[in-house]
Amino acid sequence: MAGRAAGAGWPADLDRPSSSVTSHDVARLAGVSQATVSRALRRAPNVPAATRERVERAAQALGYVPNRLGRALVTQATGRIAMVADLGNPLFSTLLTPVHDALCELGYQTLLFVEDQTRLEDVSGLFDRSVDGAILSTAIAGSSLPYELDRHGLPFVYLSRMSDLVERDSVSADDRGGAAKAARLLIDLGHRDIGAILGPTNTSTSRDREAGFLSELATAGLAVRPEAVVRTDYTTPAGFAAFERLMTLDPRPTALFCGNDWVAVGVLNGAKQRGIEVPRDLTVVGFDDLPVASWPVFDLTTVSNPVKDNAAQAARLLVHRIQSGPKPAFQHVIAPTELVLRHTHAPPPVR
Amino acid sequence: MAGRAAGAGWPADLDRPSSSVTSHDVARLAGVSQATVSRALRRAPNVPAATRERVERAAQALGYVPNRLGRALVTQATGRIAMVADLGNPLFSTLLTPVHDALCELGYQTLLFVEDQTRLEDVSGLFDRSVDGAILSTAIAGSSLPYELDRHGLPFVYLSRMSDLVERDSVSADDRGGAAKAARLLIDLGHRDIGAILGPTNTSTSRDREAGFLSELATAGLAVRPEAVVRTDYTTPAGFAAFERLMTLDPRPTALFCGNDWVAVGVLNGAKQRGIEVPRDLTVVGFDDLPVASWPVFDLTTVSNPVKDNAAQAARLLVHRIQSGPKPAFQHVIAPTELVLRHTHAPPPVR
Repeated sequence: MAGRAAGAGWPADLDRPSSSVTSHDVARLAGVSQATVSRALRRAPNVPAATRERVERAAQALGYVPNRLGRALVTQATGRIAMVADLGNPLFSTLLTPVHDALCELGYQTLLFVEDQTRLEDVSGLFDRSVDGAILSTAIAGSSLPYELDRHGLPFVYLSRMSDLVERDSVSADDRGGAAKAARLLIDLGHRDIGAILGPTNTSTSRDREAGFLSELATAGLAVRPEAVVRTDYTTPAGFAAFERLMTLDPRPTALFCGNDWVAVGVLNGAKQRGIEVPRDLTVVGFDDLPVASWPVFDLTTVSNPVKDNAAQAARLLVHRIQSGPKPAFQHVIAPTELVLRHTHAPPPVR
Repeated sequence: MAGRAAGAGWPADLDRPSSSVTSHDVARLAGVSQATVSRALRRAPNVPAATRERVERAAQALGYVPNRLGRALVTQATGRIAMVADLGNPLFSTLLTPVHDALCELGYQTLLFVEDQTRLEDVSGLFDRSVDGAILSTAIAGSSLPYELDRHGLPFVYLSRMSDLVERDSVSADDRGGAAKAARLLIDLGHRDIGAILGPTNTSTSRDREAGFLSELATAGLAVRPEAVVRTDYTTPAGFAAFERLMTLDPRPTALFCGNDWVAVGVLNGAKQRGIEVPRDLTVVGFDDLPVASWPVFDLTTVSNPVKDNAAQAARLLVHRIQSGPKPAFQHVIAPTELVLRHTHAPPPVR
């Protein structure tokens, strides 16, 4: 490849940027020591903001690009963080932007790893010095990944998931509380034949939403018939298929609690196709309050979940943990969830 | 960090995996030379598939993790590829999965970079030996990025975008041809008051779709009034806002061509809110044929665009280019586009 010295040696090459500008030049222009340039550009915590900005301006003016590879050998830090995600879950794209932007702000690159219901990408990539830490945003309860990360000493944070066995910093929503509020709404409207379309059984979000929903129903002496509960993927096609199944029940449920908004969107599409009028014939409640919920064609009653804020906060917690080293107490942030009343809920139809 | 040797030296550390297993152990178990282990695990092209599989099985059985950092110093390759994307364009999440999966299949990790209408992430991260190449999936025509990549000699491929000035391998859809087919549909239905909600002016897809649409209208002696053309973001809220503006025109357009399906979804939501019946009062045509287009609540007439196949193909073209070195002729794949007739088109209402 043109523009790169093939097979250049070490350590002479260690601090060599792609251009011929060196950190000496940057130090001279910024009026600081070379060590300060190095610390400022890798955003070490003990550099004053004003100094860092001066160094960054000088580096930019000179077109100086530090050699991440050389830096990694010296500092044992890569400046990269892995986002471990289920690309098949449509929530993923909502999480990725705030995670990327928060990491970028903190001087880190985002490397993508996949863990979904059927596979875990070769995790050796997490332990070969590709990354300084990982954000686990998949909610697969039986996953061995937390143990592997723990064993290799790689820092990580849980985003919208929890493991009871390997404790780490975590950021999640109050899934139980939010689901309980949805149940309370259905109870107060007078629904008795209630169905639920929940997420995959091995996700902690689905487990917690189910527990919160059913325990609130139980306080009113209500239960969901086993045949009126479907556990499926957190996607629109899965919601559509589950709806088709539930509409064959006799009596038909008059209200459906959906594990997330994408599932609810599948239900509302199914209702449209079958000519079932929402909310006159059927009440539908979602979870997450994604932008799709407020589209006029859906106008979905749902439970708010500050997913974007949570994602950014998880990124910041992880970077703080990496930069300040191990500390005794892990933080567990649980963001509040609220009922968002739109127009897919009503009392049950008179039979 | 526990489990990692802080400040471990070079070159003793070069081939040291995270565990104490070495490539010698893998070579012995697989019955091949150590050099073959190294070549097989970095998927060099001259290793027979059977040998590679044997080495991979042996490495897996022993829990061997090659040190990507050490490998990068020796081979000058990182095993990572940058996906440069506009996270604000909802098409992004459709492109990311096939890109990631194709790269993963080829043994590469995916590193995320952002280029959007308002900012280009610090590109020095592309030139500090973080990646072996880049996939440019943003369609921003005035971007300096192709020049920067060219100047640094970093291989790259265009996905759904083109630059006339820096030629590289490219994969895109027949945007002109697809838009012309949409125009022909509106002409044949008898529409004369036609509006268009196009993408950002500095994207090549938007430019090409506009050109194809207008030139086909011109063959029928038709044009779009200047005030009936909106150029905006490729998003649902932007489509919604543009629709509101176009509905204030007198006479109101009887048909709207939308730059992509997300824009069309914004239009259909606006129509729902205003009580405008589609297609009786208004014909709406999208572009891309994303899953959302086939949802029963929309049932959108649109233009197919094999975005997922194109994304995977761009990833493969780039890896081929990286592994086989510079070659004289660049490949330009243009995937065909077809009209998909659903239920948002009809003749204009009688006035």
